[in-house]
Amino acid sequence: MAMTVKFTLSKRAQALTSSAIREILKVTERPEVISFAGGLPSPATFPVQRMREATDKVFDEAPHAALQYGPTEGYTPLREWIAARHSKNGVTIRPSQVLITTGSQQGLDLLGKVLIDEGSKVLVETPSYLGALQAFSLFQPQFVPMRTDEQGIVTEALTAEQLQGGRFMYCLPNFQNPTGRRMPLDRRQALVQRVTEAGVLVVEDDPYGELSYHGEQLPSLLSMNPDNVVYMGSFSKVLAPGLRLGYLIAPEELHGKLVQAKQAADLHTPSFSQRIVYEALQGGFLDRHIPEIRTLYAHQCELMLSALERHFPAEARWNRPAGGMFIWVTLPEGIDTGALLAQAIEQNVAFVPGAPFFAADPQVNTLRLSFVTVPAEKIEQGMEKLGVLVKAAVAANKAGAVAA
Amino acid sequence: MAMTVKFTLSKRAQALTSSAIREILKVTERPEVISFAGGLPSPATFPVQRMREATDKVFDEAPHAALQYGPTEGYTPLREWIAARHSKNGVTIRPSQVLITTGSQQGLDLLGKVLIDEGSKVLVETPSYLGALQAFSLFQPQFVPMRTDEQGIVTEALTAEQLQGGRFMYCLPNFQNPTGRRMPLDRRQALVQRVTEAGVLVVEDDPYGELSYHGEQLPSLLSMNPDNVVYMGSFSKVLAPGLRLGYLIAPEELHGKLVQAKQAADLHTPSFSQRIVYEALQGGFLDRHIPEIRTLYAHQCELMLSALERHFPAEARWNRPAGGMFIWVTLPEGIDTGALLAQAIEQNVAFVPGAPFFAADPQVNTLRLSFVTVPAEKIEQGMEKLGVLVKAAVAANKAGAVAA
Repeated sequence: MAMTVKFTLSKRAQALTSSAIREILKVTERPEVISFAGGLPSPATFPVQRMREATDKVFDEAPHAALQYGPTEGYTPLREWIAARHSKNGVTIRPSQVLITTGSQQGLDLLGKVLIDEGSKVLVETPSYLGALQAFSLFQPQFVPMRTDEQGIVTEALTAEQLQGGRFMYCLPNFQNPTGRRMPLDRRQALVQRVTEAGVLVVEDDPYGELSYHGEQLPSLLSMNPDNVVYMGSFSKVLAPGLRLGYLIAPEELHGKLVQAKQAADLHTPSFSQRIVYEALQGGFLDRHIPEIRTLYAHQCELMLSALERHFPAEARWNRPAGGMFIWVTLPEGIDTGALLAQAIEQNVAFVPGAPFFAADPQVNTLRLSFVTVPAEKIEQGMEKLGVLVKAAVAANKAGAVAA
Repeated sequence: MAMTVKFTLSKRAQALTSSAIREILKVTERPEVISFAGGLPSPATFPVQRMREATDKVFDEAPHAALQYGPTEGYTPLREWIAARHSKNGVTIRPSQVLITTGSQQGLDLLGKVLIDEGSKVLVETPSYLGALQAFSLFQPQFVPMRTDEQGIVTEALTAEQLQGGRFMYCLPNFQNPTGRRMPLDRRQALVQRVTEAGVLVVEDDPYGELSYHGEQLPSLLSMNPDNVVYMGSFSKVLAPGLRLGYLIAPEELHGKLVQAKQAADLHTPSFSQRIVYEALQGGFLDRHIPEIRTLYAHQCELMLSALERHFPAEARWNRPAGGMFIWVTLPEGIDTGALLAQAIEQNVAFVPGAPFFAADPQVNTLRLSFVTVPAEKIEQGMEKLGVLVKAAVAANKAGAVAA
């Protein structure tokens, strides 16, 4: 009776394609590859001993509750902790606005489910986080790319036509993935005002906000108008990503719908990991731990910037991030970083080509470098190899331009 | 600038309503309520010491890997373990067919995403698992309810018209939620053959299969035609649900799409809990542990059946499950178990009315009783109270029928 059925996939599944990053990451699992591609936090920053003590405490004090089903909204003390941490700059966040998610990525999926119909307008940065574009794409929106510069979204360039009927605007104001850019305060204020006046909801994705190298943090968009901002936070970059623990803070009317969607998606995020993280956070742990991550990442960022100066040609441009995990490099027009990646992989170096981060009109001469996963000593080594390839590509591109 | 925006919700979110079970569970959190409502495994069965030892091993041997991002498909050794466990009855399951999910519930969401378009036909049992109806509903299918009897789906009653164009058939052959029924072998064979010939994919949801009280297990639908069956398994009922660890076994072509949908949904299931569960499973632990669960549940099922005999009126009908967690009770027509629940809650007893388990034409005179969460000594106490209410409802219903 072994007859095979030809499945009929949904339209959204037919449109799914494997992510470029995903395919790349497969190659970079080879230990000989120096990979600037992954957005993986440095395992050196994982507070293993602290997590172990927290786990022991959970097993000592509440093993059965930690192993049982729990409420969809999340573990109440953890929600209270999150609400308190975001109650600042004159704004009070209520625990009832917090929803614990299975990683920040799940927040994107839930927002897509609850807010996007086929053809709905969703405003996104140019470029934007690839994982968000993928999550939203499943619900078949019409992406509206917003113009950006070194300081993020150019508010004045937003037209009434772009905003009209937008379901939401998605942005990462702090050390954006992929560009590493941070929006200054005046930009934030202007953006929230403009978008709110236009009747468009703001989705603020903030996994990197705590990773400001010099410690100074800018007010969140959430703090500027909590009635119109959904804030997405994560413990992946300040504790460890393998726990898959993130959260949403949303206006209560929307929160209720997100909870219903979450219930259908996975009932709830593991009680076990929620309780462990809650215990790990006690006694102000993050405020002692995060400065260690900042120091390490600031150091590695400096190493990569220095290597860029020494090994990359004058024609390449890049930013100097004030925090986060990424540097964004723009090569001369005419160079395709996808082709460059193929050459780099042969030399056992990897990065992410910029194209997949664009909702439309990809700039194929861009690339993203992550400086946090690779140990310091390998940054120089990898960048030297990459520099040779980039110089050759720039030279060939010039020759091609002259010939044409 | 605190102006509120009126969100525009997606059509699917507008159709979302809060689950009846969810609202009930809120009430039953009060400690004085004896609840036969929840589908929560007995915490007495959680292997706390074993989980603790497994966690210690993970912290000793691979803490950084357990706290880092991992592959979307899941932890490879765990996938291999699952594939080996399901390779029996002459069928070989490859690890590449296994996808680890954040609870079985996520498998339902991923299948909905990948297989359902608005209006797609999805065949479901009458009644069926409420959480599946909710998960699929988000993708706006057209449910096709299949006729069932005490032995599950009545294959001969399936018409060509019902099957025509069906994206998939969803069923729980073992100790179904909510009815506790198990499909006999001949039914399984006839069903797989009929549905496969009609070109319809089978989704076999099997969280309770291991909970056969006398240990004998029937061949899975998967084993009858692995090319046309997606199998959903879970560690929630054999280890602990608070870990949120489930899995899908799917034909490879479909598996690839499910992986892509999973990546957009939460990147991957926590590395931490996957590794812990893998360690806990070593050395044949389940084969020693599951018999303890079976013995406890068989005993509690007997207690409830005995209480039903003593306290429920002759007009009520129910089944004698051979495994699992649930008994399905049918009261005389004309009785609404929703109204009965309101009375029961006043007496601090709870159950789940049957209506929400029906994709169409709800039988409001049915109810689901769970006998595993409540300790043995409370079963008698709760059932006595419930019996009084049911007898009164039956008497009032008769009087009403006579009056009418």
